[in-house]
Amino acid sequence: MTVIAVCQLALSVGDVTGNRAAAAAAVAEAAEHGADLVVLPELCDTGYVFSGAEEARALAAPAADSPTLRHWRALSVQYATTIVAGFCELGDDGRLYNSAAVVSGDEIRTVYRKAHLWDAEKLVFTPGDEPPPVVDLPFGRVGLMICYDLEFPEWVRLAALGGADVITAPVNWPASEVPAGERPSDVVRVQGEASMNRVFIAVADRCRAERGVSWVGGTVIVSPDGYPLAGPVTADHPAVLAASCDLAQARDKRLTAHNDVFTDRRPTLYGPVAK
Amino acid sequence: MTVIAVCQLALSVGDVTGNRAAAAAAVAEAAEHGADLVVLPELCDTGYVFSGAEEARALAAPAADSPTLRHWRALSVQYATTIVAGFCELGDDGRLYNSAAVVSGDEIRTVYRKAHLWDAEKLVFTPGDEPPPVVDLPFGRVGLMICYDLEFPEWVRLAALGGADVITAPVNWPASEVPAGERPSDVVRVQGEASMNRVFIAVADRCRAERGVSWVGGTVIVSPDGYPLAGPVTADHPAVLAASCDLAQARDKRLTAHNDVFTDRRPTLYGPVAK
Repeated sequence: MTVIAVCQLALSVGDVTGNRAAAAAAVAEAAEHGADLVVLPELCDTGYVFSGAEEARALAAPAADSPTLRHWRALSVQYATTIVAGFCELGDDGRLYNSAAVVSGDEIRTVYRKAHLWDAEKLVFTPGDEPPPVVDLPFGRVGLMICYDLEFPEWVRLAALGGADVITAPVNWPASEVPAGERPSDVVRVQGEASMNRVFIAVADRCRAERGVSWVGGTVIVSPDGYPLAGPVTADHPAVLAASCDLAQARDKRLTAHNDVFTDRRPTLYGPVAK
Repeated sequence: MTVIAVCQLALSVGDVTGNRAAAAAAVAEAAEHGADLVVLPELCDTGYVFSGAEEARALAAPAADSPTLRHWRALSVQYATTIVAGFCELGDDGRLYNSAAVVSGDEIRTVYRKAHLWDAEKLVFTPGDEPPPVVDLPFGRVGLMICYDLEFPEWVRLAALGGADVITAPVNWPASEVPAGERPSDVVRVQGEASMNRVFIAVADRCRAERGVSWVGGTVIVSPDGYPLAGPVTADHPAVLAASCDLAQARDKRLTAHNDVFTDRRPTLYGPVAK
């Protein structure tokens, strides 16, 4: 069994030192649960609600020379775990990216740049042009995407077809109105996508309002059946949740003796979806 | 406002006369709600749990010469409504199809053949090779797919990109284990897909076990926000639900000043999804 932990953090925009400490404390708590894989939120080093591109630029760092990523590498060694987290990347091209890394055994295993940008992010960041990565780790294959990426079923499908056992998703889900008795649609979408692809999905969200923006607090781990294994928190406080996951379940795409969610696809009929 | 009704029926395999009467009663009840559009279940004329292809063949009829479709045409005139319902089709090619029709103003507006077949259906039916149709009606554009088709996000996307305001789905959702306190994943998937495409989805399911198969009873109408407007029933009894829907909401794909769920797509990056 693989222990996956998802960490819902209270971060402050611009307080990179404080945010790094919050991440370190969450990783330590996740390690107490025996976590093989720890997911932290989007833009976990800088916070999210920038006043504009200038503020983001002042806080950004290149992946290869980022104090934040050095810190996560050290944590990955100290706790013998794999860390997935979002950071504010300054590209070699001088542009800013809303990125996330998979860090394991003192190594940056991949850096992914968010391809679908949300709202004012478009005024700050350049969208990535690469598909969601899938990293082969000793315990299983880890896919990675960021927040609004999850709302594009094509993107989740790409990661699943790429072999992901679990799709990790650092997010900052801004809160919106939820009808009484309903689960927030952000969480519902993730449940649906997990079940349609028969993969685990592990989401780490934010809490505590930042510059007037409040969050869903939807930190959750969902099974390939589409049901939560831990969370959703859906409350405005920090949390570290863990679940033991049999990642091999995600390699069996069968639903019945005659059905398999991958081989039942009719891709020759889906052409226009890619246009 | 457009009134949409979804009808959860108890049907009996082979009892075409009784099933037709159950459909007629449901359409009459929907008409009392002022329904502009009435959705009935999959294989609404014949029932679902065939002993094999021979039994299905004995019950099937060509669309152009089907007593069931004649009956729905008459009902569409009598109640001045549009009927969407599933039937067992004998094709001109001699093959059997799990089909559904949109019937309005005494006309068969489209016949759709299920493209993704579930379980033992593969031993009875030939899958359709045409995309989900979208029918332009006076009150809005009606998309159509059947049951397991809904589990392919590519298919729902096709209907949405094709202009559907509401995707209608006759289904027979076989029950599976649902964790305590959770909504069945069948319903959750539909909620997620409605929100990712910002369309209405109207599902008519079954109730009452048929030859040992029981059903989710998940009849539901979901808004473009991904929340139920009526249902889900999730109980094992017949039901006619109606909701007033502002279908124009489905033509506005914006989420924020900077986001639109269609124009935010990155189709040049989705190539492999179509393969």
